[in-house]
Amino acid sequence: MEKTTIKELLGDYKKLIHHDITVFGWVRAFRSNRFIALNDGSTINNLQIVVNFEEFSEDLIKNINTASSLKITGELVESQGAGQSIEILAKKIEILGDNFFEEMQTTILQPKKHSLEKLREQAHLRFRTNLFGAIFRIRHSVSFAIHQYFNQNQFFYLNTPIITGADAEGAGEMFGVSNFDLNNLPKNEEGEVDFEQDFFGRKTNLTVSGQLEGETASMGLGRIYTFGPTFRAENSNTTRHLAEFWMVEPEVAFNDLEDNIDLAEDFLKYVIQYVLDNCKDDLEFLDKRFSEEQKQKPEKDRAKEGLIEKLENVIAKRFKRVSYTEAIEILMNSKENKKGKFQFPVENWGTDLQSEHERFLVEKHFESPVVLFDYPKDIKAFYMRQNDDGKTVAAMDVLFPGIGEIIGGSQREERLNILKAKMKEMHVDEKELWWYLDTRKFGSVPHAGFGLGLERLVLFVTGMTNIRDVIPFPRTPKNAEF
Amino acid sequence: MEKTTIKELLGDYKKLIHHDITVFGWVRAFRSNRFIALNDGSTINNLQIVVNFEEFSEDLIKNINTASSLKITGELVESQGAGQSIEILAKKIEILGDNFFEEMQTTILQPKKHSLEKLREQAHLRFRTNLFGAIFRIRHSVSFAIHQYFNQNQFFYLNTPIITGADAEGAGEMFGVSNFDLNNLPKNEEGEVDFEQDFFGRKTNLTVSGQLEGETASMGLGRIYTFGPTFRAENSNTTRHLAEFWMVEPEVAFNDLEDNIDLAEDFLKYVIQYVLDNCKDDLEFLDKRFSEEQKQKPEKDRAKEGLIEKLENVIAKRFKRVSYTEAIEILMNSKENKKGKFQFPVENWGTDLQSEHERFLVEKHFESPVVLFDYPKDIKAFYMRQNDDGKTVAAMDVLFPGIGEIIGGSQREERLNILKAKMKEMHVDEKELWWYLDTRKFGSVPHAGFGLGLERLVLFVTGMTNIRDVIPFPRTPKNAEF
Repeated sequence: MEKTTIKELLGDYKKLIHHDITVFGWVRAFRSNRFIALNDGSTINNLQIVVNFEEFSEDLIKNINTASSLKITGELVESQGAGQSIEILAKKIEILGDNFFEEMQTTILQPKKHSLEKLREQAHLRFRTNLFGAIFRIRHSVSFAIHQYFNQNQFFYLNTPIITGADAEGAGEMFGVSNFDLNNLPKNEEGEVDFEQDFFGRKTNLTVSGQLEGETASMGLGRIYTFGPTFRAENSNTTRHLAEFWMVEPEVAFNDLEDNIDLAEDFLKYVIQYVLDNCKDDLEFLDKRFSEEQKQKPEKDRAKEGLIEKLENVIAKRFKRVSYTEAIEILMNSKENKKGKFQFPVENWGTDLQSEHERFLVEKHFESPVVLFDYPKDIKAFYMRQNDDGKTVAAMDVLFPGIGEIIGGSQREERLNILKAKMKEMHVDEKELWWYLDTRKFGSVPHAGFGLGLERLVLFVTGMTNIRDVIPFPRTPKNAEF
Repeated sequence: MEKTTIKELLGDYKKLIHHDITVFGWVRAFRSNRFIALNDGSTINNLQIVVNFEEFSEDLIKNINTASSLKITGELVESQGAGQSIEILAKKIEILGDNFFEEMQTTILQPKKHSLEKLREQAHLRFRTNLFGAIFRIRHSVSFAIHQYFNQNQFFYLNTPIITGADAEGAGEMFGVSNFDLNNLPKNEEGEVDFEQDFFGRKTNLTVSGQLEGETASMGLGRIYTFGPTFRAENSNTTRHLAEFWMVEPEVAFNDLEDNIDLAEDFLKYVIQYVLDNCKDDLEFLDKRFSEEQKQKPEKDRAKEGLIEKLENVIAKRFKRVSYTEAIEILMNSKENKKGKFQFPVENWGTDLQSEHERFLVEKHFESPVVLFDYPKDIKAFYMRQNDDGKTVAAMDVLFPGIGEIIGGSQREERLNILKAKMKEMHVDEKELWWYLDTRKFGSVPHAGFGLGLERLVLFVTGMTNIRDVIPFPRTPKNAEF
């Protein structure tokens, strides 16, 4: 990579002072026909270009506008002005491609404040804004930190299938995948669609989780993780749901529930620390934005911490570990519950926790990330390991301030007879999952894992509030543009 | 991560000699009721456990079989025997879970040679074999090296949509995605399926490439790469096709074709070097397997190089860069062509190259990886940049020995008027790609990128020959098991 990015230049310019260099980028602003703020996407910071307009043709100067793409050669000097350390005294300016300035005025590239909604409608252009540049650079760093963490800890990245014949996991409604012409479906003798004639010779769906396949791999490779897209065909038009999102699912042979919680805590802290260390400029921008947003709110709704402060606090504290049973006690005895302040009153052991309860525990009661564990078996999935009390399973959820559940996991049921009984009870088809049961037959071992929704973590780290703003091209009901 | 893996132990045991340690794993072999070869998936190497059977109950010893899962505590000592540096003198042995030894005999876990086909049928168990352990550990390292390379070079990881409303790219037949009950489809007034009532309010498909969306992001972030699943609904039952595979697609603003070729070469060499540096044991195992396979072949069909030797040679040489026009000359004038040895004779400029031609150039003529560039425009996609000769486009393919095309890419057409004309000519719908055209309107810049099929690269690095053996759960016509 021969070209120098603006990030490199701003970071390490000493040896280049008074040298001629060439830079590329887009105009963010052009002040007084003299100062160009140039951005190339490598950083949120712009490079100042000083243009002596008398040295260039009027025609060229006239055509340099917001959003123009430029190649500039000039001398790198320490800046006289405030606000930047260096600038380039332009000697050669080349406009690289078309910019229809008039038409641009109707897009989000026009330099004024646009609503997040409008930015979403032009998702193909929002990469060029400060806000979305920052978000997607951070999303990158979060993703890279995830890979690096697992690689350092001897996990192997596993690509579980996206198209799957199984629909037994029951994590949510699934999208169908087919090669059929829907206007011309083949039927069988009963007059039903004949899936045997479909591409895969059966009905297939988009995966809701790679966990079950991941478990089989962990039974050979020891430690694995998936990191790929997952899907839910749920008609939920909220700020927290996507039809297509990215999930990270580690699975570890020989781990029990406590190991699993240790892993989740260590993992989250590593990733957040990585972002603090590597995304300083973008985080500071978002931190400022976050503070300004808080000021718009009534005082009682404001966040107690700034964005960066929140991230630092999460790392500093040991996550509070609380059993579901203890948590229910706390909730039932809380003033909020007694005074009827919860939308869903907490009345008895066995009830599923709502977002408001999770947030109460995290934000009010413990003022710390919380790990809940040992949930009632009836509200959890068939594959979770039954505890000796006969009532609970070795499940765990990590709850974060402002977000609620950020990780959900469990130790898995490794005992064949108990697993089979559970599947029967919960109407999970044994025949369909023959291969899953196999892993309990040939050297079964205790093992555990969890799932992290990538977008939830990016929401947390960026301080954004709508999940559609932390994935490049969101997929939601009635929306698959781009 | 408190538990010590066998890989860690074998790598750094000095300080642990004569200490008691605990290890976990599966029995690969149990010789003479005395020596257990224990494997935990972290490495291809087994740890030797020495069992003094008099110190354990007969019942326990009887139940230790191939594939049994064990937790063993004992003293770590330097090994007296040949073949391993250390061993553990077992003091405590615990069988961790069920192993139905009789039933296991009918699976691929039975320690004898199984065909690759049989291993594929039990893909959920093949992670526990030496061969597939090695392959999937290497697949991990290839993937990690890809992320690391791009991260180091200031690329941002971008998740482009899997479900897409666009079907304009034309890279291949697409799978449909729908939330409809196919036995009960809503129809519109014309009696056709009413896709407006589907989940996304339109017809949607599984992506064949993230390139077009990736281009829009590169126009803001500068350098991006995708790494995700892509799909082809092609009924190709070959050793080189999958319906679902993983693709890597970098896209770089301000790069031209030559930059793009430089990037591809540097990138491939980095990844291969990383695997050579980090997967020594697994590569040596595969190298040996590869050599043994070659010996089974008639001499004329044998590979000239060993597996590791091949990888080292690819790194050592500068890839040969040859224009399509030169390549056609070479092919037309070759003995092979004149003597009619090609299945598809090369008769004129403009013809598309077949695999046999690519392999001739790489394996016979140049004996080097080859980059072909400047292809006839009529055999390439609409988005490739037109060269000044009016006949060719700035496309490039990287060809590897034994594999053929491993990377395909191009500089993109950044000039709006030429792009529009090309789309018209090739019947690509402008309305559907309004957002793609937008990126040529507002500060358009030269840019370039390429696509790498991950499985092709893993085939190359592992020396395997069937693509179904380098992805955990292959998806092919009539097969979506697991």
